Amino acid sequence: MSFNTFGRVFRFSTWGESHGPALGAVVDGCPPGIALSEDDIQPWLDKRRPGTSRFTTQRQEPDRVRILSGVFEGRTTGTPISLMIENIDQRSKDYSEVAQAYRPGHADYAYEMKYGFRDYRGGGRSSARETAARVAAGSVARKLMSDVRIRAYLVELGGDQIDRALFDDTQIDNNPFFCPDAHAAVRWETLVDDARKRGSSLGAVIECVAEGVPPGWGAPLYAKLDSELAAAMMSINAVKGVEIGDGFHAARLTGETNADAMRPGNDGKPVFLANHAGGVAGGISTGQPVVVRVALKPTSSILTPVETIDRDGVAAEIMTKGRHDPCVGIRAAPVVEAMMALVLADQKLLHRAQTGK
Amino acid sequence: MSFNTFGRVFRFSTWGESHGPALGAVVDGCPPGIALSEDDIQPWLDKRRPGTSRFTTQRQEPDRVRILSGVFEGRTTGTPISLMIENIDQRSKDYSEVAQAYRPGHADYAYEMKYGFRDYRGGGRSSARETAARVAAGSVARKLMSDVRIRAYLVELGGDQIDRALFDDTQIDNNPFFCPDAHAAVRWETLVDDARKRGSSLGAVIECVAEGVPPGWGAPLYAKLDSELAAAMMSINAVKGVEIGDGFHAARLTGETNADAMRPGNDGKPVFLANHAGGVAGGISTGQPVVVRVALKPTSSILTPVETIDRDGVAAEIMTKGRHDPCVGIRAAPVVEAMMALVLADQKLLHRAQTGK
Amino acid sequence: MSFNTFGRVFRFSTWGESHGPALGAVVDGCPPGIALSEDDIQPWLDKRRPGTSRFTTQRQEPDRVRILSGVFEGRTTGTPISLMIENIDQRSKDYSEVAQAYRPGHADYAYEMKYGFRDYRGGGRSSARETAARVAAGSVARKLMSDVRIRAYLVELGGDQIDRALFDDTQIDNNPFFCPDAHAAVRWETLVDDARKRGSSLGAVIECVAEGVPPGWGAPLYAKLDSELAAAMMSINAVKGVEIGDGFHAARLTGETNADAMRPGNDGKPVFLANHAGGVAGGISTGQPVVVRVALKPTSSILTPVETIDRDGVAAEIMTKGRHDPCVGIRAAPVVEAMMALVLADQKLLHRAQTGK
Amino acid sequence: MSFNTFGRVFRFSTWGESHGPALGAVVDGCPPGIALSEDDIQPWLDKRRPGTSRFTTQRQEPDRVRILSGVFEGRTTGTPISLMIENIDQRSKDYSEVAQAYRPGHADYAYEMKYGFRDYRGGGRSSARETAARVAAGSVARKLMSDVRIRAYLVELGGDQIDRALFDDTQIDNNPFFCPDAHAAVRWETLVDDARKRGSSLGAVIECVAEGVPPGWGAPLYAKLDSELAAAMMSINAVKGVEIGDGFHAARLTGETNADAMRPGNDGKPVFLANHAGGVAGGISTGQPVVVRVALKPTSSILTPVETIDRDGVAAEIMTKGRHDPCVGIRAAPVVEAMMALVLADQKLLHRAQTGK
Repeated sequence: MSFNTFGRVFRFSTWGESHGPALGAVVDGCPPGIALSEDDIQPWLDKRRPGTSRFTTQRQEPDRVRILSGVFEGRTTGTPISLMIENIDQRSKDYSEVAQAYRPGHADYAYEMKYGFRDYRGGGRSSARETAARVAAGSVARKLMSDVRIRAYLVELGGDQIDRALFDDTQIDNNPFFCPDAHAAVRWETLVDDARKRGSSLGAVIECVAEGVPPGWGAPLYAKLDSELAAAMMSINAVKGVEIGDGFHAARLTGETNADAMRPGNDGKPVFLANHAGGVAGGISTGQPVVVRVALKPTSSILTPVETIDRDGVAAEIMTKGRHDPCVGIRAAPVVEAMMALVLADQKLLHRAQTGK
Repeated sequence: MSFNTFGRVFRFSTWGESHGPALGAVVDGCPPGIALSEDDIQPWLDKRRPGTSRFTTQRQEPDRVRILSGVFEGRTTGTPISLMIENIDQRSKDYSEVAQAYRPGHADYAYEMKYGFRDYRGGGRSSARETAARVAAGSVARKLMSDVRIRAYLVELGGDQIDRALFDDTQIDNNPFFCPDAHAAVRWETLVDDARKRGSSLGAVIECVAEGVPPGWGAPLYAKLDSELAAAMMSINAVKGVEIGDGFHAARLTGETNADAMRPGNDGKPVFLANHAGGVAGGISTGQPVVVRVALKPTSSILTPVETIDRDGVAAEIMTKGRHDPCVGIRAAPVVEAMMALVLADQKLLHRAQTGK
Repeated sequence: MSFNTFGRVFRFSTWGESHGPALGAVVDGCPPGIALSEDDIQPWLDKRRPGTSRFTTQRQEPDRVRILSGVFEGRTTGTPISLMIENIDQRSKDYSEVAQAYRPGHADYAYEMKYGFRDYRGGGRSSARETAARVAAGSVARKLMSDVRIRAYLVELGGDQIDRALFDDTQIDNNPFFCPDAHAAVRWETLVDDARKRGSSLGAVIECVAEGVPPGWGAPLYAKLDSELAAAMMSINAVKGVEIGDGFHAARLTGETNADAMRPGNDGKPVFLANHAGGVAGGISTGQPVVVRVALKPTSSILTPVETIDRDGVAAEIMTKGRHDPCVGIRAAPVVEAMMALVLADQKLLHRAQTGK
Repeated sequence: MSFNTFGRVFRFSTWGESHGPALGAVVDGCPPGIALSEDDIQPWLDKRRPGTSRFTTQRQEPDRVRILSGVFEGRTTGTPISLMIENIDQRSKDYSEVAQAYRPGHADYAYEMKYGFRDYRGGGRSSARETAARVAAGSVARKLMSDVRIRAYLVELGGDQIDRALFDDTQIDNNPFFCPDAHAAVRWETLVDDARKRGSSLGAVIECVAEGVPPGWGAPLYAKLDSELAAAMMSINAVKGVEIGDGFHAARLTGETNADAMRPGNDGKPVFLANHAGGVAGGISTGQPVVVRVALKPTSSILTPVETIDRDGVAAEIMTKGRHDPCVGIRAAPVVEAMMALVLADQKLLHRAQTGK
């Protein structure tokens, strides 16, 4: 069953396909009176926009967003905000091969088993172009939380990790990889170039940190802050794993090393001596930075032929021509940020609903 | 905001605390006419039941389930199924220390920041006793899918991994660790004994495999099968990471090694040459086994003192007396199975809703 | 599909059948820190309790409520509140006739077409005993809104209307009919006695007024305050019509007579010169009293034989023996109040979520 | 809180305002493989379109719908269907009066109390132009139920009822009032003309009948078919009352007259001797026609001055210039049909989810 709405009170619904005339998001539940214009949204879309370096797809999409409703005299009215982005560069090409055989790693086979047929042009609805709508919606979410700073960056590309000792926040926007380690960024240029030339692709790990989240957002057990984040991140194309705080590494700690000890702080707030928990305990924010890591598989669209079958069940080989990101993980960083913002904005309003705070 | 209902059409709501009179689940949306009695539910509860070995908490709870509604003449009526489990062994003890100071690793501080106060007896609502309700609900979900076989087992405990070459499905129920590697199970006895004696605790990684899931369950992008599983698993106490298929390892593969190549099968169905995807592509099941792995942090309740602050913000030390699992990951295996069953049952009905299949 | 949860952020789920061991409600989303005990709930249940006069069913149910979770040291914790009421007086009787043939006016035939079989004992899930759970949940909702006063009363019984000129609020609890007109109450005694003696039954119209609702609760178009009220009221057994404010009569007014003119008030708030709108404009409360009227059909369980068919499609006659209300509309008044409270409490929290007010 | 999504598995979300660039609906949960083009939608929009007779507003809107997603090669893909209608004739005018004072009968005051300000151009989001989006979505819903025939018509206008003895289905589309009684249609011409000339407006009662609904759609108690219909109808602008079957009249019947007696039919299905229930018993369809009646208040926008206050609380008078329907109830008939279709399509899929039928 198709459920393209995400969130509980601050919600967004997305629509659109890779090769349709447009795609969009409807943001519902936004508080009234918030200053909002296309200029608040466009910069975030530009960060995710394709074709900005040789390390991403060469599809040229300006990704200009239009606000079609929900804003009056520069402020949100409290009613649905419709955001639309036109598709410009849907290159006409021959899709007969993709239409007839299933691309391993793609959703082709699963889609066809579910729906009986599929929109094979550029992946249809399963295309990562849909994430532009998330980024647009996420930029509205950010406007609700001026005290929260959200940052996503790659900590690993093609198996090559950053050196945490070289972490430099200011580097993230200085290279085409959202990489906080300048040395790693240089190595990754070679990695991605090589993969692209080989007709191969690479995976990545993105870390996202939200600072300024007050203690108390979230809920116990179900609709936990971490559970909502996990659902949000796993809903992004190509994501295969999600960690909160130390994540899988926490399973190797002992109870006493994993405990984030607390000390009295100068401002009446506690000082935590560590953040193994990633800012979430029992499903509720602790006031520490919220830390999420997501693993993205390598782009499934590759120029290397792979064994498959066609729609008649006959053995075939297939490679995916066209313009593709050699590493979808790169452009996913702004998308991960957007999903973090969308979950947090929803949680902020839910917390206010229950507690009045 | 408190949302203790999980699922979209096959749903369950849980209620109850560690030290209240009872806990329970209300299962709603169950198809009518399914044979169901307490005998279908009790065996699954018994697998999760505390006090069955020296490696789990010594709290003695019979965990007897009662069906209070929704079943008539041995069959489900299609109306809500109320399941109740009484708490028997809530030992009266002195909670004044826990009431006054925050236990690091626990939700104490976050709860109090959210709600202004908290039920400190045994963790209140955040106690893992709540998972009994999930297991009860999950046993109803299993009845909807007689063709699906779900199995969860520990692949790592305290950082010590099983040897995949020694994997033996029949071993899982032969040791107190749901461990499929008989040699690892022996090593883990020592590990857990040592941790318990030191007043420490250990984490674990659980793998859960669902076989027999047909292709087509799930949805693209939002409410993806993997997104729903991620939310479900991350909602379990102490879980800090979730992987589908190769998970974080997939980020280190190339596009061609990650692709699950397909060949024609004898029965008209394709044969997949690998299952890196963990049975889910584009959010939809492929017909391969659905594979999930979850990381559980070490039990936060430990006898080792940890630095903290009290409710007045004054520096303190705290240790958690009482009866606790030295590794919550062990008894979480039946809970992971239950959540897998609950997600799949919901997806089965959703798929039927949209496609009639 | 069975959906026994009502509300969006302040929600309740009910379970239980007429002849099961118990019935109950789980209230989720309640703010923390609200004083709550069984003594807050029992008085409302007592108003709806059967067997208190000769004008209601003679089934003897004490309807004692127990709080099983969600309250600690006399205050709500913010987690699910489980409320349970045991069934005591499920009289064993011969249901073979009801089991074999469909009672017109009842859900027997529709249930069986949907589910393939049905719990025929006292109507099973469709019994009005379920409304006890609503009343229990509603009494929690009332605790969230100390400024709101909710009152339901019968304005018509068996086609006999009250005289609005004789409306006396203090009379409502002075007769067994929740009737604000003392003269009508006397007439209704005869009406109901006669109907009971004839083996017949009567319908009723209930009016419910909520005073003290501030302007601003609700939403435009969907999830409108009036739309939520309509769904809530129509979900009560035997309800066949719902009106807001002037309701159907408004269709006979002109635009200028229907307009609730406004004048400046002494306290800065406007004075409305009329309340045709029933306190709701564009789906949002205006600050005037919220006025709802609901029509209840006559009790379907009657001692008069009615033509029907049996499960084999053969012509039959059926009458419903047993203990029944000659007018279900009477005891529905506390249920209508409860549903009003539940909708308003949800809207209060939703309004707070979006606007912070 | 803004919730502009309606439905449970077959859902639609609408967006847009009276004077924005466009409005639209996103239909989610539609089964795949259904033939769908603009030509399936446009005829229904044309029925609701303004400016087609002197009895409706003179605003000229072509209401051309575009399908922006979810359809591939003429068939639905199972993913979100985005429908957009551009606003063409938003006449520029002076709104300063409406901006400064509250129009009684309108949502102006309630909106401003909720949101702090409002889009005053043509009612903004609360404009009945939004119903075009519902009609577009409803036309998709119809495609799911080829066996169901839905018809809405006016049974009363300005207090003048049709003569049921003159009911003629073929007349409904032969006059500008969706009136099944040719004589009444003639009278209504005069009524509406007079009201328009006086600067007044009239209310109406619409009846909607769905034939061909099989027994079994719906659910007991909550999410009842009638409860969902009540919410759907009450969400339409200007609706103040909803009845199912005999509705308020049922409250005046006795149990035996209200019972819809059943007799064996020739085709194995029962024959009902009456339909007081309006095709719904216990929340579930009986197989009889589903009958709903809705009351619409007179248009609030009138040229007659009404007493009010301005935003500063000062006494004022206001009249609403501009182009308005003298009776919004007329053009609401296609909207009521659309909401009936949307509820039924959702219920069809929900029934299939739970029972496989």
